Amino acid sequence: MLTPTTLTRVVGAALEEDAPWGDLTSTALIPEEAIATADLVAREPGVFSGGAAFAHAFTLTDPALTVDLHVGDGDEFGAGDVLASVSGSARSILTAERVALNFTQRMSGIATVTAAYVRAVEGTTARIADTRKTTPGLRAFERHAVLSGGGRNHRYSLSDAVMAKDNHLAVLTRSGADLATALREALGRLPHTAHVVVEVDRLDQIPAVLEGGAHTVLLDNFTLEDLREGVRLIAGRATVEASGGVSLETIADIAATGVDVISVGGLTHSARALDLGLDLRIA
Amino acid sequence: MLTPTTLTRVVGAALEEDAPWGDLTSTALIPEEAIATADLVAREPGVFSGGAAFAHAFTLTDPALTVDLHVGDGDEFGAGDVLASVSGSARSILTAERVALNFTQRMSGIATVTAAYVRAVEGTTARIADTRKTTPGLRAFERHAVLSGGGRNHRYSLSDAVMAKDNHLAVLTRSGADLATALREALGRLPHTAHVVVEVDRLDQIPAVLEGGAHTVLLDNFTLEDLREGVRLIAGRATVEASGGVSLETIADIAATGVDVISVGGLTHSARALDLGLDLRIA
Amino acid sequence: MLTPTTLTRVVGAALEEDAPWGDLTSTALIPEEAIATADLVAREPGVFSGGAAFAHAFTLTDPALTVDLHVGDGDEFGAGDVLASVSGSARSILTAERVALNFTQRMSGIATVTAAYVRAVEGTTARIADTRKTTPGLRAFERHAVLSGGGRNHRYSLSDAVMAKDNHLAVLTRSGADLATALREALGRLPHTAHVVVEVDRLDQIPAVLEGGAHTVLLDNFTLEDLREGVRLIAGRATVEASGGVSLETIADIAATGVDVISVGGLTHSARALDLGLDLRIA
Amino acid sequence: MLTPTTLTRVVGAALEEDAPWGDLTSTALIPEEAIATADLVAREPGVFSGGAAFAHAFTLTDPALTVDLHVGDGDEFGAGDVLASVSGSARSILTAERVALNFTQRMSGIATVTAAYVRAVEGTTARIADTRKTTPGLRAFERHAVLSGGGRNHRYSLSDAVMAKDNHLAVLTRSGADLATALREALGRLPHTAHVVVEVDRLDQIPAVLEGGAHTVLLDNFTLEDLREGVRLIAGRATVEASGGVSLETIADIAATGVDVISVGGLTHSARALDLGLDLRIA
Amino acid sequence: MLTPTTLTRVVGAALEEDAPWGDLTSTALIPEEAIATADLVAREPGVFSGGAAFAHAFTLTDPALTVDLHVGDGDEFGAGDVLASVSGSARSILTAERVALNFTQRMSGIATVTAAYVRAVEGTTARIADTRKTTPGLRAFERHAVLSGGGRNHRYSLSDAVMAKDNHLAVLTRSGADLATALREALGRLPHTAHVVVEVDRLDQIPAVLEGGAHTVLLDNFTLEDLREGVRLIAGRATVEASGGVSLETIADIAATGVDVISVGGLTHSARALDLGLDLRIA
Amino acid sequence: MLTPTTLTRVVGAALEEDAPWGDLTSTALIPEEAIATADLVAREPGVFSGGAAFAHAFTLTDPALTVDLHVGDGDEFGAGDVLASVSGSARSILTAERVALNFTQRMSGIATVTAAYVRAVEGTTARIADTRKTTPGLRAFERHAVLSGGGRNHRYSLSDAVMAKDNHLAVLTRSGADLATALREALGRLPHTAHVVVEVDRLDQIPAVLEGGAHTVLLDNFTLEDLREGVRLIAGRATVEASGGVSLETIADIAATGVDVISVGGLTHSARALDLGLDLRIA
Repeated sequence: MLTPTTLTRVVGAALEEDAPWGDLTSTALIPEEAIATADLVAREPGVFSGGAAFAHAFTLTDPALTVDLHVGDGDEFGAGDVLASVSGSARSILTAERVALNFTQRMSGIATVTAAYVRAVEGTTARIADTRKTTPGLRAFERHAVLSGGGRNHRYSLSDAVMAKDNHLAVLTRSGADLATALREALGRLPHTAHVVVEVDRLDQIPAVLEGGAHTVLLDNFTLEDLREGVRLIAGRATVEASGGVSLETIADIAATGVDVISVGGLTHSARALDLGLDLRIA
Repeated sequence: MLTPTTLTRVVGAALEEDAPWGDLTSTALIPEEAIATADLVAREPGVFSGGAAFAHAFTLTDPALTVDLHVGDGDEFGAGDVLASVSGSARSILTAERVALNFTQRMSGIATVTAAYVRAVEGTTARIADTRKTTPGLRAFERHAVLSGGGRNHRYSLSDAVMAKDNHLAVLTRSGADLATALREALGRLPHTAHVVVEVDRLDQIPAVLEGGAHTVLLDNFTLEDLREGVRLIAGRATVEASGGVSLETIADIAATGVDVISVGGLTHSARALDLGLDLRIA
Repeated sequence: MLTPTTLTRVVGAALEEDAPWGDLTSTALIPEEAIATADLVAREPGVFSGGAAFAHAFTLTDPALTVDLHVGDGDEFGAGDVLASVSGSARSILTAERVALNFTQRMSGIATVTAAYVRAVEGTTARIADTRKTTPGLRAFERHAVLSGGGRNHRYSLSDAVMAKDNHLAVLTRSGADLATALREALGRLPHTAHVVVEVDRLDQIPAVLEGGAHTVLLDNFTLEDLREGVRLIAGRATVEASGGVSLETIADIAATGVDVISVGGLTHSARALDLGLDLRIA
Repeated sequence: MLTPTTLTRVVGAALEEDAPWGDLTSTALIPEEAIATADLVAREPGVFSGGAAFAHAFTLTDPALTVDLHVGDGDEFGAGDVLASVSGSARSILTAERVALNFTQRMSGIATVTAAYVRAVEGTTARIADTRKTTPGLRAFERHAVLSGGGRNHRYSLSDAVMAKDNHLAVLTRSGADLATALREALGRLPHTAHVVVEVDRLDQIPAVLEGGAHTVLLDNFTLEDLREGVRLIAGRATVEASGGVSLETIADIAATGVDVISVGGLTHSARALDLGLDLRIA
Repeated sequence: MLTPTTLTRVVGAALEEDAPWGDLTSTALIPEEAIATADLVAREPGVFSGGAAFAHAFTLTDPALTVDLHVGDGDEFGAGDVLASVSGSARSILTAERVALNFTQRMSGIATVTAAYVRAVEGTTARIADTRKTTPGLRAFERHAVLSGGGRNHRYSLSDAVMAKDNHLAVLTRSGADLATALREALGRLPHTAHVVVEVDRLDQIPAVLEGGAHTVLLDNFTLEDLREGVRLIAGRATVEASGGVSLETIADIAATGVDVISVGGLTHSARALDLGLDLRIA
Repeated sequence: MLTPTTLTRVVGAALEEDAPWGDLTSTALIPEEAIATADLVAREPGVFSGGAAFAHAFTLTDPALTVDLHVGDGDEFGAGDVLASVSGSARSILTAERVALNFTQRMSGIATVTAAYVRAVEGTTARIADTRKTTPGLRAFERHAVLSGGGRNHRYSLSDAVMAKDNHLAVLTRSGADLATALREALGRLPHTAHVVVEVDRLDQIPAVLEGGAHTVLLDNFTLEDLREGVRLIAGRATVEASGGVSLETIADIAATGVDVISVGGLTHSARALDLGLDLRIA
């Protein structure tokens, strides 16, 4: 899903941000002809993501650098593992190092926390999905990292699927209109390919939103008991999604209620960077 | 430091990322003429940052929206406080909501953790500084958030100050050259306005780097005892910066050694988003 | 669906394309202070679309111009009707004229042909939808014009819905795999919000693609008889879409088969520009 | 005239428009390692144009794809002819297919209709020229297609030649000024390299505009008789251009009047896309 | 000729170049609420150009600044004259000052030297024209400055007029072809609106290039005597342009030969910046 | 310091500026298959700069061109020397020629004048530095040219070092505050890596600005006597920079006063283009 165009544009902009008029230090201290090899080493265990961004940071800085990825996105690794190697101009490697790490540390951080959530729901039918709570400008990268961790993507943007929330429903029915009728009518104006998620706060909204045409019913901030009741009521007529109050502590219980999808903002909005380092040997 | 150009460019790109061809849901469900007011409400206490980005998300979506900021960047707030209000077209507010929150939640998260570090070193001479471990594309926003939290900024990029690390020093001296001489010679090629930070791993490197022209000596991963000894050795001839192994648990002790600056990657690379929400009332 | 950002970007680029270093003619021949009023006049009847692009062409050229739209997108008009008026600097109006017309003539051309298709299927359950056969760079504008003509939009891009065609199905089953199983497995890797269209060439593929998880079955190049049989076989378990061999001559019969959606490439790939002109009166 | 920069920019933007965050279908259904060959096949006869854009759509999507063009821009072909072949990753070919076709179908459509006009005036001195009635953002591509069809280009933009129309002349003379004098004076302010076209509506304007310095006199919406008289009056002192009321039915008669150039908006504003298809064989 | 789009794009980029992450000095030293007025004062006499760029530098930095231009582009001024005033936030004025001066000093430098050339040819029929020897990225600004100084513009780019030089002619005739025939044939492929300049090195080339279709004959590096002879030979059948060896010392004599246009690379490639300063008074 | 990204962006934009829709002349007159070799020849002696920009102009126009640089940036050359050669398509070489020359003529002009200043201060401790009086959009290129000429760079922008001038100091002390105290306090808010230049007009300001924390004291428009006294007073506690009234006539005397740095606006704001030409031989 990370297209070559997106990789080049976003990683290129990060390199310009980090060195708008060159790398003062390496230009002054490192001879142009010095050659080096650098290893990307894991300082802690995790799940890898961001290999392509890591490689682009180096090759966009200097097309003559060689990057070898020893693990693929989605691979688990242990502390001390060498994940990738770069060789070529020492100056170029030192110039690109921080940007390369900034991408892969964040993406591997997201992949690692996603994998923890995925493991926590193993044995249930629930899938873990991300949200739109992503870092501005990096959505495609963070979505990719969620996939690396074994999670699923939710809608990408406001443009590609419908999600009707409490405020939308309030507007629809404020003049006393019947929810199911008003919803069905409004959705009729959409592309026939638009998937419709409707968020509900209470069990008694479920029949109306199903009748109104929801393809997914999102049970927001429900108790475990109400989640179970929701699954029973929906009875396969729509995908059942749960959100709210999700953490590594609570997710197994939520998954056990039989929901199909659990969306977790924390996969992207609060993942910490994984500790990866670059060990360099000047030839 | 966040120029109008940067705000418009970055927030505008985030809006395009989140709605490349419009907001399907609000277009279908919210009448064009519906008017609403929305409050930005804190779900937990913290330090505010990102008011301008929050406002830009709304006004770039719809110039007719009115945004009132009730707190300024750097202000503390409690859970339940109303931090800002937006009024105008309900459609436009709903379209811009997520992007506005994505910026201000992250920036306030960074400001809040920075403030915690700053509080932890109160009464010492140490200042808290950020690093280049920022989110690609958002450096100016994250630096601004560090200032909101009472921290200081470090060099912005590879282009505006020199930081010579172990690899640079290794290259300089690999043919047996004297460190101080080699350093002084290399730095002589730089703009006279270039501040020079030299990172050392051992106390015995300090005399040479001072003689070589360092304006700041960065003591990396030193024990508390060695930090104290480093401060004593440098004796005001350069700024003393400490880094490595810094956490809210360790920072007070580090600060007590007498260092001038403590740089903390965690201010930006792993801050979690603060829980802020938008409460909307349709008129 | 046409966001302010898209309008400004695309119309602005068209103005730069048409006058990269200014309008030689108007600069030389029209005094800077000359004031004019211009009417957008229909030379033939049709359905209007592109009011916002028309207005942007003028106001991006000169923010002091005033544009009044007398009809809204989607309104029908007759030959000779005045659709909009512009007033202000004669130079600016003459500079922007061609770009303004290029947008609204094309968009109204699309709206008008779409309306003809929509009228042709009145009284049936079929809706008219567009395709991805749009002009490179103008998809959002052409989609908007289809809506103005009473049509519906299909998926916007390769990124927001799935459409499995003959080649995709051939790959899935080339090692002898069962289509329904292979399809269901492949689709399971997608976001749960991804709508799935599967194109079939023969009636006997329908049971498998339904079982495989298609939300829409696209009957491509079917005879009228086979379309009727397809509708019967699908029996409401998926949306039924027809494509291929669609023209104003054939569409009523296709619609009468009971299909839900008829997608028509010709709405956008071959619509001719409508004849609209700008009549200018210098004050 | 289509520079490498323009090709890369415009085709790249079209690819991003069509797959902003990847191709959901091919990613899910086509194995990464599947290899295919695809032929561009003509479903109807015509004149080819857009080979470079066709190739760029594939190679910008995936530099490892190989594109062989079997015909050159400007070549005629029959129904069933194979015009080009692409081979490499099946996923990449399927992702780029629609954009590649959108360019070459439109460009070949323009080339084909242009060739029809050119054929219709064979044996006369008249050349067929395009206008500024082009698709916003695609002018360079459409101009190129006109050349492929054997037509000539007119001025590219408002910046590279002068065309004084009725409104310009009205302003020049509204205070009673003599047209020839006013025109000569105004044109004197222009670069000496600016070619000047003056549009006239009546024969009696011709002496003044010639005296005023017109290099081309554009006879707009003239009867055949008046065109002949115009050619006689101008007598080689300027290029004679005709426009208005031009169609494949009327153009031979217009050309027979002896005019030098006939400009035809319909070459670009209303050409239909040619029916070209991509036949794919998965290896 | 300087469109609003060009002004905003180029001046905006210059501001970002000069303050990519803000103005450290003014942010630290000038209180946000300080108000100031600044006068643009001429330190030497000259001809003004660049008023719009000067104003844009301030208003793009801070839309609340007020800029009053006391002279128009093309006006002469003396040492000590106040040319413009700016008032508003002291911080904003100081931030934009250098960029505003960089534009107007260079443009006024070009206007001033152009005016000197124009004065030197007063009383002759010769006009002074610029060349393509402009600063990369600033052509539209430098062309505008030439107009401010009373000069004329030449072709803007390689795309809007033809200039055949020695190398082009050498290629045309290398297989023994007749120059006039080869030229006429080659030019026949061009838009009829393309003005054709042909550069000659010797008098004996003139008949052939006239016959070949040149609209302007450029006499390059001719002696005064040969220029006079060239004018006589061309005899009004084409515009006569002279270039090469042009300086303020030689131009009057060149103009006296009767040529129509003298093109001077030095107007733009070597003009020095005029000494203009900004005098600021903090309120 | 000229990164690959900057080179590609700026040279690419210059090429688009000079040929927005192709090179009419070469397309019409030069056969596509013609091959040529061109030499960059010095028409006057100087110091070379801009080799990379020269090469990029050709290879961005046509990747198949081969460029050989015979001199490096910073090398001196004599009149008649061949500095570089280009070979490949004659059309492509002719299309790129002017842009390639525009870059290298200007950059070599700056390098040459810088070298003259550097020679003039030989034997003293003074270094020659540039200023922010650069051409908008070309700062990185002009800074590079200054280095080629043996000069040093000053701060790049408002964002990377502090320079407090008269107006800043006036604001700091206008309420009667003590300069040293006010300065120290204000600078305390800056990154510890920010180098601080303070400009003074009078000798008596020196003690306060040293006490206030200046790293460089800039003596602006001082007499030679006062410069000597300034150097004595500062006594190594800060770098001493001189500016104002600097020319090739005065600089040796200024350097003899013992200042460390002399900043010279004229290196970039008024350097004339060096006379370099391209001699082409068609094969």
